Amino acid sequence: MLRLATPGYQRFVQTSEFEATYGGGEANVAVSLSNFGLTSKFVTRLPNNDLGLACTMSLKKYGVDTQHIAQGGDRLGIYFLETGAVNRPSKVVYDRAYSSFSEVKPEMFDWDAIFEGAEWFHWTGITPAVSESAALTCLAACKAAKAKGLKISCDLNYRAKLWKWGKKAHEVMPELVHYCDVILGNEEDAEKVFGIKPPHTDVDKGVVDALEFEHVCKEMKVKFPAASKIIITLRGSVNANHNTWAGVLFDGKTLYQSSTYNITHIVDRVGGGDSFMGGLIYGLLTYNSDQQALDFAVAASCLKHTIPGDFNLVTVAEVEALMKGDGSGRVQR
Amino acid sequence: MLRLATPGYQRFVQTSEFEATYGGGEANVAVSLSNFGLTSKFVTRLPNNDLGLACTMSLKKYGVDTQHIAQGGDRLGIYFLETGAVNRPSKVVYDRAYSSFSEVKPEMFDWDAIFEGAEWFHWTGITPAVSESAALTCLAACKAAKAKGLKISCDLNYRAKLWKWGKKAHEVMPELVHYCDVILGNEEDAEKVFGIKPPHTDVDKGVVDALEFEHVCKEMKVKFPAASKIIITLRGSVNANHNTWAGVLFDGKTLYQSSTYNITHIVDRVGGGDSFMGGLIYGLLTYNSDQQALDFAVAASCLKHTIPGDFNLVTVAEVEALMKGDGSGRVQR
Amino acid sequence: MLRLATPGYQRFVQTSEFEATYGGGEANVAVSLSNFGLTSKFVTRLPNNDLGLACTMSLKKYGVDTQHIAQGGDRLGIYFLETGAVNRPSKVVYDRAYSSFSEVKPEMFDWDAIFEGAEWFHWTGITPAVSESAALTCLAACKAAKAKGLKISCDLNYRAKLWKWGKKAHEVMPELVHYCDVILGNEEDAEKVFGIKPPHTDVDKGVVDALEFEHVCKEMKVKFPAASKIIITLRGSVNANHNTWAGVLFDGKTLYQSSTYNITHIVDRVGGGDSFMGGLIYGLLTYNSDQQALDFAVAASCLKHTIPGDFNLVTVAEVEALMKGDGSGRVQR
Amino acid sequence: MLRLATPGYQRFVQTSEFEATYGGGEANVAVSLSNFGLTSKFVTRLPNNDLGLACTMSLKKYGVDTQHIAQGGDRLGIYFLETGAVNRPSKVVYDRAYSSFSEVKPEMFDWDAIFEGAEWFHWTGITPAVSESAALTCLAACKAAKAKGLKISCDLNYRAKLWKWGKKAHEVMPELVHYCDVILGNEEDAEKVFGIKPPHTDVDKGVVDALEFEHVCKEMKVKFPAASKIIITLRGSVNANHNTWAGVLFDGKTLYQSSTYNITHIVDRVGGGDSFMGGLIYGLLTYNSDQQALDFAVAASCLKHTIPGDFNLVTVAEVEALMKGDGSGRVQR
Amino acid sequence: MLRLATPGYQRFVQTSEFEATYGGGEANVAVSLSNFGLTSKFVTRLPNNDLGLACTMSLKKYGVDTQHIAQGGDRLGIYFLETGAVNRPSKVVYDRAYSSFSEVKPEMFDWDAIFEGAEWFHWTGITPAVSESAALTCLAACKAAKAKGLKISCDLNYRAKLWKWGKKAHEVMPELVHYCDVILGNEEDAEKVFGIKPPHTDVDKGVVDALEFEHVCKEMKVKFPAASKIIITLRGSVNANHNTWAGVLFDGKTLYQSSTYNITHIVDRVGGGDSFMGGLIYGLLTYNSDQQALDFAVAASCLKHTIPGDFNLVTVAEVEALMKGDGSGRVQR
Amino acid sequence: MLRLATPGYQRFVQTSEFEATYGGGEANVAVSLSNFGLTSKFVTRLPNNDLGLACTMSLKKYGVDTQHIAQGGDRLGIYFLETGAVNRPSKVVYDRAYSSFSEVKPEMFDWDAIFEGAEWFHWTGITPAVSESAALTCLAACKAAKAKGLKISCDLNYRAKLWKWGKKAHEVMPELVHYCDVILGNEEDAEKVFGIKPPHTDVDKGVVDALEFEHVCKEMKVKFPAASKIIITLRGSVNANHNTWAGVLFDGKTLYQSSTYNITHIVDRVGGGDSFMGGLIYGLLTYNSDQQALDFAVAASCLKHTIPGDFNLVTVAEVEALMKGDGSGRVQR
Repeated sequence: MLRLATPGYQRFVQTSEFEATYGGGEANVAVSLSNFGLTSKFVTRLPNNDLGLACTMSLKKYGVDTQHIAQGGDRLGIYFLETGAVNRPSKVVYDRAYSSFSEVKPEMFDWDAIFEGAEWFHWTGITPAVSESAALTCLAACKAAKAKGLKISCDLNYRAKLWKWGKKAHEVMPELVHYCDVILGNEEDAEKVFGIKPPHTDVDKGVVDALEFEHVCKEMKVKFPAASKIIITLRGSVNANHNTWAGVLFDGKTLYQSSTYNITHIVDRVGGGDSFMGGLIYGLLTYNSDQQALDFAVAASCLKHTIPGDFNLVTVAEVEALMKGDGSGRVQR
Repeated sequence: MLRLATPGYQRFVQTSEFEATYGGGEANVAVSLSNFGLTSKFVTRLPNNDLGLACTMSLKKYGVDTQHIAQGGDRLGIYFLETGAVNRPSKVVYDRAYSSFSEVKPEMFDWDAIFEGAEWFHWTGITPAVSESAALTCLAACKAAKAKGLKISCDLNYRAKLWKWGKKAHEVMPELVHYCDVILGNEEDAEKVFGIKPPHTDVDKGVVDALEFEHVCKEMKVKFPAASKIIITLRGSVNANHNTWAGVLFDGKTLYQSSTYNITHIVDRVGGGDSFMGGLIYGLLTYNSDQQALDFAVAASCLKHTIPGDFNLVTVAEVEALMKGDGSGRVQR
Repeated sequence: MLRLATPGYQRFVQTSEFEATYGGGEANVAVSLSNFGLTSKFVTRLPNNDLGLACTMSLKKYGVDTQHIAQGGDRLGIYFLETGAVNRPSKVVYDRAYSSFSEVKPEMFDWDAIFEGAEWFHWTGITPAVSESAALTCLAACKAAKAKGLKISCDLNYRAKLWKWGKKAHEVMPELVHYCDVILGNEEDAEKVFGIKPPHTDVDKGVVDALEFEHVCKEMKVKFPAASKIIITLRGSVNANHNTWAGVLFDGKTLYQSSTYNITHIVDRVGGGDSFMGGLIYGLLTYNSDQQALDFAVAASCLKHTIPGDFNLVTVAEVEALMKGDGSGRVQR
Repeated sequence: MLRLATPGYQRFVQTSEFEATYGGGEANVAVSLSNFGLTSKFVTRLPNNDLGLACTMSLKKYGVDTQHIAQGGDRLGIYFLETGAVNRPSKVVYDRAYSSFSEVKPEMFDWDAIFEGAEWFHWTGITPAVSESAALTCLAACKAAKAKGLKISCDLNYRAKLWKWGKKAHEVMPELVHYCDVILGNEEDAEKVFGIKPPHTDVDKGVVDALEFEHVCKEMKVKFPAASKIIITLRGSVNANHNTWAGVLFDGKTLYQSSTYNITHIVDRVGGGDSFMGGLIYGLLTYNSDQQALDFAVAASCLKHTIPGDFNLVTVAEVEALMKGDGSGRVQR
Repeated sequence: MLRLATPGYQRFVQTSEFEATYGGGEANVAVSLSNFGLTSKFVTRLPNNDLGLACTMSLKKYGVDTQHIAQGGDRLGIYFLETGAVNRPSKVVYDRAYSSFSEVKPEMFDWDAIFEGAEWFHWTGITPAVSESAALTCLAACKAAKAKGLKISCDLNYRAKLWKWGKKAHEVMPELVHYCDVILGNEEDAEKVFGIKPPHTDVDKGVVDALEFEHVCKEMKVKFPAASKIIITLRGSVNANHNTWAGVLFDGKTLYQSSTYNITHIVDRVGGGDSFMGGLIYGLLTYNSDQQALDFAVAASCLKHTIPGDFNLVTVAEVEALMKGDGSGRVQR
Repeated sequence: MLRLATPGYQRFVQTSEFEATYGGGEANVAVSLSNFGLTSKFVTRLPNNDLGLACTMSLKKYGVDTQHIAQGGDRLGIYFLETGAVNRPSKVVYDRAYSSFSEVKPEMFDWDAIFEGAEWFHWTGITPAVSESAALTCLAACKAAKAKGLKISCDLNYRAKLWKWGKKAHEVMPELVHYCDVILGNEEDAEKVFGIKPPHTDVDKGVVDALEFEHVCKEMKVKFPAASKIIITLRGSVNANHNTWAGVLFDGKTLYQSSTYNITHIVDRVGGGDSFMGGLIYGLLTYNSDQQALDFAVAASCLKHTIPGDFNLVTVAEVEALMKGDGSGRVQR
């Protein structure tokens, strides 16, 4: 997906240029994993034109395997981004209707070849949102991944503006989520997709009480018993430049909590959730400890907020330094 | 329409930013007329979002009346532009499918109100190309304009990539063109839409013989006898930076020829034809002489090649200075 | 007025480029009103050159009626802006002496035509500051507006550097302010123009006690009994990036207070007072409640601090969302 | 003087930024001489503000002695530049009225100290054009220079828009020019100031016949018999991007001609005449041959056309390489 | 290698920013081949820091296999580029001494693994120029390639400034060139390395007579009888913006000549020779005709002159369109 | 030294441009002093190429005397800077090995001429770190300065990455520091060079207790009894955007403390220590009070954090305004 962002906090009506980068939920996760030294493959469908090519090249740059990207369709999905400040929220204008990806069909992919040698399959709630055929493709992928013995994770990633093809999220998502071992959501997703919400927290107040979300995790676990981990990211929005950031992980028994980061000067928060997922998959595959996996995910995504663009361009060493407590930002020289 | 151009001769795969301007066939003509001091009104359909608003504002800036623009639909049409150099052609990637404008319908406009007090209605061949309903809307407008006694002009503006809705240009255009008093085409349009071509000229050779086009004009006059003027723009393409530029006007009897400009360092040639049309309408409304009208049109559009963006931001005085022969480009101070 | 600002916190001696926008007290108010959906007209005098034209076009872009702008004189007023950070203040170098506007004369305007159909006339203390003839023109406008039954408002807007033509603000302003129904000042204006100050507040300390300003409002009301509302904006300057922002409105009986916004990451605070005035006029014309009008004004101008340039490019919906308490800045998508 | 230029061939009404550099007739000559390794001093008057300071620093950067610049007055002179292309001329909007320099007075400078140790004094026709007191200051400087035995040169530099203070160029210049040993003009100056013109050449045609200017030189020599050299620059304007460039020098007996350069892709032609003068002074001080001095001047100023900004940032070695015939532009590595 | 170029024709002393891209002789060839759809691998040595990483990523973006790049050493080679115009040549400041690559040693590479499955090995004369150990490494590679039966090509690429390690080009190159099947040089290389020059051509005059180079080819063939093809690129330098471009290929019997392109508005000529080599290898591997291979190489590198940066980002279809004669640069839409 | 910084918080792998400025420890101090109105001279060695020239010019711009800079050697030292945000530290990639300066030798400078008329000599710990010959040169300078009766100051400026030539800082520095009257270090230098550290403070916690450093000062005074003042800068790193900043000065008897600044929105903290030193030298030379000298130094360097680039471009008046307590950042107009 092409992201076109106004520079320098300009509003859409002011700008005479757009900063162009490429990104999108699953792509961002793939780039994170590749940066962390794992092999990752990104599967999507892109138009056979220069913009599709540029998108592919931006993934190859960061080492993502793009050989299974299908080509075809009319257009590359676009989203326009106006970065907010203080009490003015960032604003996204989606222009992804009729994209090559929205017209994806199950038969366009050879899942057997795609999953050969893979350990993990990840998808997000954006895919089933864009069209019925995309939802069916996602289902086909889940089935194939399960058949091959891959771990499956999803990020619920609810976007109200996208569910327009007829069915609602709560009608479509349950079947897909049942395939998942690892389920990630933010502090609003579980409520908006499944109606499960914490008793009292108001996320707009910049105060997010982690313990409130134990309830949400437990309800999710009841609803999706096959999932071995339920993870929730906790964003407190002080204002558009200043958020708090943390996460909880529930393994069916214990609720692990991360420390809370105070992100006082956000550079770019888009892709924050994806960078969390990238960190989490790396953490779960690398550490023997759910606490450490969670801490890695939170630290990784905390750093994402300091990097322009959707991708989280950090190394394992950088994440681990922060995870171990060095958040002072002192110049390294 | 939003135009997104790579800066500094970059190719699409290189760029990290796009220069954003707004434009499009009829809009460009409207801006030209407003710059020349005439009252102009632009009628289209734009989405009710920030991009639609930004597009409207860019027209208001140059004095175009935007009150009759309809709102609705999903998206603003986009075209991506990569500016070529020397032997590398400029490249356009259209992304205008499913635009608000392509879904325009005749009943969305109150032509009676729109044409109240107007003298002239102009349309281009792009409108009937984008969709059947757009073609029908164009037809409705022509009928309404004719009923109110307006002069009608069209620019044939053939774009092969756009005619995808079922019928071909040669099936649709004749009915529409029959309403026109003034018909403009470039050195290829008449051939591609109506199969009328000059005997020998090869436009890729940078040599365009004006007299060759007398034949085209006469054939057009035969086909569209109601038209009082047939005009053809003559572009010789030495290379992407260097074109020659001229025009001929046929009034049914005489073939008027302009002088030929040697545009050796093109800044931006997109919108060149539209700037010709803007100059021609101004010229026909202002001068008593077809020769002068033609000369004004050619000089105006010659200057357009030196201005970035689709719009021709020149004054009558500047055009007339060039028309009278001062093309030396000496600093004015 | 042309505003030339150094980019990226550069100092004047460092910069090799200036960001160019147009603005100025009354123009900024006119743009605010137009953005909020009201009809607004801007009256000034601009030179008959390309800079005057560019200035006019930037107003037309945002829907302001510019037909009564007089043309003539030598030059467009300019101000150079160096944006400060933390403990380094922003710095303005005025270059507006001898501007077309400073040589404005009463007879250059047909106030009867200008005020036809209007409800409200607004002026700022900058106008009488620039020259004697501008002060006389302002007086003529006040008289004409009063005669036609318009509401009149002013923003005291004291600028020590501008009062150089002979008389001082305290000698000139009283006669003009007596025409006003609505008087706006910031936490320093009343003191600097009329010697009226709050007992204890020190505005440089980042702490501004709203109640302290009841005294100021009451003194102003005594001095200008015809004014139905006295409004004071309250800016607490923590540092150049971080201000607090609030306002009080006194209707002769009650002191209404707004909530105080904590603007922690200012993008551009120039035009803050003008955006308050724009919000206030809209609020007073739209709501039946002085409290709501004040709240709208404070919220509108709070958002201005997040937008580059002088103009406050926000919608009524955006202001009302903040006014109702949503200042979390969460991404809208 | 501050120069504010629109980037990328934008017109004034399009731009949202200006490229800021400093320059002006005599300053440009001083920078040229300093670059060529000579000691040069620039005398002017600048306002005591950040823009005056930035202007001074830009001269110090290139080694010009700025210690005798007077401080005071209201404003720094500005000129706005819109760079033209092909048949669209570059456009200058002067905003130098009321500048600190225009209010210069003879008693502001201690010419004795300024000229101590100096060999050469250079002035341009812009100085007497801006105000009567500037003309008087120029006269005082000429007298002081002559008394100290310095060589004096002038560049006629006629600018019609500047002569507004009461007297005309032809009334003021003769007295000043009589002090000069070296007189430089372009192909139009002698005509516009003194009414001396070549019999047939039309400079807008891109064809300038050097021999035609022998007549002009001879007439000048008759009018100013004290001058030992009369030099005329010859610019043929093919269009705004493509000029030819040459010069002739008349020593009272012989007319020396330079070769003609074909400058096909101009980057920036403003300051072209000044760079010629800088090269000429260097050449006359360095070589024993008028032909070589002329050739150096023409080659130096030919290179100026390839450098953005007013200053000619080239070395003696670079000029001499071109002067000796290497104009191939092959990469140096 | 990191390339740091001043923007907008600025001189080094003017610039406040550098455009950063990556490139270098063999890397540029590898990118060309990958763009043409072939598999290519780039072997070098880069420092283990962020700049080395960024360089690697820029190659991966375009599909080049980077797995055999060795890591180590102190620094990435840099070259600073100032782009010239008209008679001012482009200027390169090399800063590649002590680079990681210059300290390359034969034992750092497993040539057997590197050449596994490969068909072709290409090196340039820059490698043996930078250090003795680099020359030895190049020799080791040639031996290993020959042993594995690969075709070997070289580009003589003489750079006088680089040969500083003790031996001269003519002492080192012959042994290396003897391994080559295909030898490429420009119109000066053969003379500067081997003393073989055409009888009369002066390359700085913008006139290069292809037939003159038959002599050079034949002499080269005598000196290196194992080479099956000798190719010479022919650049005529009209000025820094305008070159002519052609090539000849000698197969031991016949001298094939390409047509000559007139590149009137160069965007970036650095990497021109490398893009020729990339096109030539593709052509020799793809076509059955030496004439076609030569034509493809010349057309490919002609297009390179229109693209900023070292890499030739064109497709086979684009090259073939030009090769077949369409150099009109007409907009593709 | 050339500083190449990524713009807009970009990471090295993202950027396509670098912002280029010049700077470095002693140069930054020289510029500060010149800005404060003192005469300053910078002594170093630069390559005889365009980059060395550009570096020299950037110093001349700010009035630094560059006549004693030696020319020669291969390359200008470079450092690449990636500006961090929040918990992501800024990152410096040094590329200064083999620089002209690192190959400096004592005999390259005529210290007698250099120190003629001077009062103060300042050096930093970076000089002896880069090479043995640089350390010897620094020693020669200290001896010469002492012999001429100059005050000598040093900034310990420990950079672990630079001490690579054989000896360690603790082996080399003592002899050099013994010459100093004024010794400056940051909160880590004394520990890293001499093993002297405060009992408990952890500088990464954003809390720095000034009193803790009395111990460090006293130990330093014991070790270097000739020093009349020991000064320590105290930076508390809340995160990369937010630091606290203060200093202590020990005169052998009393520990003077500055107030602590809360720098909440850092623009550029590189050069912070140098700007402190510049302010300190100015303060010690100007005020009769160590407290005022310290306060001036802290305020000056606090302002540096708001200015892009290495140089501290502030005036005495600006520093004194802050020193007297006005840190509100209110717009100056």
